[in-house]
Amino acid sequence: MSEAPHLTFDLDTPGVSTGNLVVPKGADCEVLSLPVFSCNRGEGPSLLITGGNHGNELEGPIVARRLVEWLPEAQKCGRIIIVPEINPLAVQAWTRNTPIDGKNLNRVFPGRSDGSVSERIADAISRVLLPMVDTIFDLHSFGPTWNYPPAVITHPIADVDLMTKTLRISEAFKLPVTLLWEHDDTAGMFDTWAHSQGKIFICTEFGGGTISAEALTIYEAGVRNGLIALGLVEGIAEYPTFRQQRSGQTLETNPSDQLKSPAPGIFEPRCSVLDEVKQGDLIGILHPMDSLSADSIDVRAPTTSIVCGILSGVYVQANEEVASLARPLAI
Amino acid sequence: MSEAPHLTFDLDTPGVSTGNLVVPKGADCEVLSLPVFSCNRGEGPSLLITGGNHGNELEGPIVARRLVEWLPEAQKCGRIIIVPEINPLAVQAWTRNTPIDGKNLNRVFPGRSDGSVSERIADAISRVLLPMVDTIFDLHSFGPTWNYPPAVITHPIADVDLMTKTLRISEAFKLPVTLLWEHDDTAGMFDTWAHSQGKIFICTEFGGGTISAEALTIYEAGVRNGLIALGLVEGIAEYPTFRQQRSGQTLETNPSDQLKSPAPGIFEPRCSVLDEVKQGDLIGILHPMDSLSADSIDVRAPTTSIVCGILSGVYVQANEEVASLARPLAI
Repeated sequence: MSEAPHLTFDLDTPGVSTGNLVVPKGADCEVLSLPVFSCNRGEGPSLLITGGNHGNELEGPIVARRLVEWLPEAQKCGRIIIVPEINPLAVQAWTRNTPIDGKNLNRVFPGRSDGSVSERIADAISRVLLPMVDTIFDLHSFGPTWNYPPAVITHPIADVDLMTKTLRISEAFKLPVTLLWEHDDTAGMFDTWAHSQGKIFICTEFGGGTISAEALTIYEAGVRNGLIALGLVEGIAEYPTFRQQRSGQTLETNPSDQLKSPAPGIFEPRCSVLDEVKQGDLIGILHPMDSLSADSIDVRAPTTSIVCGILSGVYVQANEEVASLARPLAI
Repeated sequence: MSEAPHLTFDLDTPGVSTGNLVVPKGADCEVLSLPVFSCNRGEGPSLLITGGNHGNELEGPIVARRLVEWLPEAQKCGRIIIVPEINPLAVQAWTRNTPIDGKNLNRVFPGRSDGSVSERIADAISRVLLPMVDTIFDLHSFGPTWNYPPAVITHPIADVDLMTKTLRISEAFKLPVTLLWEHDDTAGMFDTWAHSQGKIFICTEFGGGTISAEALTIYEAGVRNGLIALGLVEGIAEYPTFRQQRSGQTLETNPSDQLKSPAPGIFEPRCSVLDEVKQGDLIGILHPMDSLSADSIDVRAPTTSIVCGILSGVYVQANEEVASLARPLAI
């Protein structure tokens, strides 16, 4: 019989500890040991910070690694647990999904102890780490093919009290966008499971392809603001500078705000994230590439909105998402 | 016996024509038909513009597709042939190499008529299109994991006259960087083959992950400047604005300017392209991810130089390139 997922050290040890979360072996791969950092300063909020859920979104693991360096000095109370890479297999392959089982780790929560490796990772996190905390920061980004503003995203939560608390902490990150995203593919997501356990779940996002020093500065400032809001770290929260602006806005988006490619071809973006567009404004152009006599096709805004995400210039099939629009949240 | 590579139309037809370059079938795949645009305005320079050599560098195909729209009006003389996607298989897969044979199209020139699909594409271009022109613009970019300034790159050419002409036209693109790159892996490159045939070969590069509307504007301005320099299009060449600056510099780099990762882990960039650095300045940090008690390792500049390229935050093996430095070209 396989061993159960477990930690190699005691989270209740006062102060800083490091060790591993052991994900038992299965039919598809050997035991995984995920490095874990813990800083236990006694009474106070308890927080789990995770990065590397998707392996081609590495702002999170880098910022998590930075936190490991300065939190021991900065953390005043409570408990913070950090797992910079919850999916090292995907990180090393620079892929969204786990290469061994082809699964999206963020669609298999709470996981299965007898499942494939993604499911065993989810099971280990759900059973060993999640019960130890009341808040989770899961550090994502939009991956290599999307331009997206620095943002905190949350899906609508049926529990009104939890929804209110989540939005309040999300906005406290002071990133340019706080987004309430009505999503039609949330089954098995880490946040969906955490919400079912009554946890506050914060998902940071960030886009723009390559990761630059400037982008990391913004990302880290957002996370630090979140730590200040929880009372774990002292300091003054400030809006980081994004595109020469210091401000934030709270938006909402739903499945009908997704613009789709009208045909197969290469999508050419013609606007930038956070652009305000009116009905009929040009968002991008779809270039059919199988004939140079075929006209390119404009993709236009169906209504007044804010460009929240826009696809890079990549080849798309017909009906693939090329842009996502949003509107100020109606409270 | 397989048919020979050929065009479905006559390039000597005056004015605008479109058709296909037929790459014969082989053991690994069926016939490929690459869409080709031709604008023949009689006497004057002759130019081949190619994009999509690597399938995850799509600034080139998009700008090529834009040219197809405005060149019929703008071209005053000579001959321009455009193939927006010379490797549609890689473009559709968003991969650097051709998925069917796993080969880098830009390492198999001049190709082989009885080879795998990458080699047959190279053979068709080398035999059918290259002899028709005296200059080539091959539109590349640095792909999804590198930050790189908009640049024209050329390798050292033994023929001094060709080297001089190539540098002069490269600088006429008025992109922020013109780079003389001494490279240790040039066998089978399109430019190496074109040089051997006495052609002027211009390779544009561009980095920064996702493709934005702003990036495309800079890229297209550079190509338009090149067309003006050749006398194919009338107009005034101006430096496009990159990072709020309008200027250009000519640099050189060689294999010893490549900085390598000191260990496996996630590379964190700590500087930006075109930063001027002194000996000992911090370029980036390598974070070992298999233990949170292992120290992160600084990657520092070995000498005074200009940061030409810097890797995104991605997982690297030991000794992988993480940054490339450069210096003003000593003439």
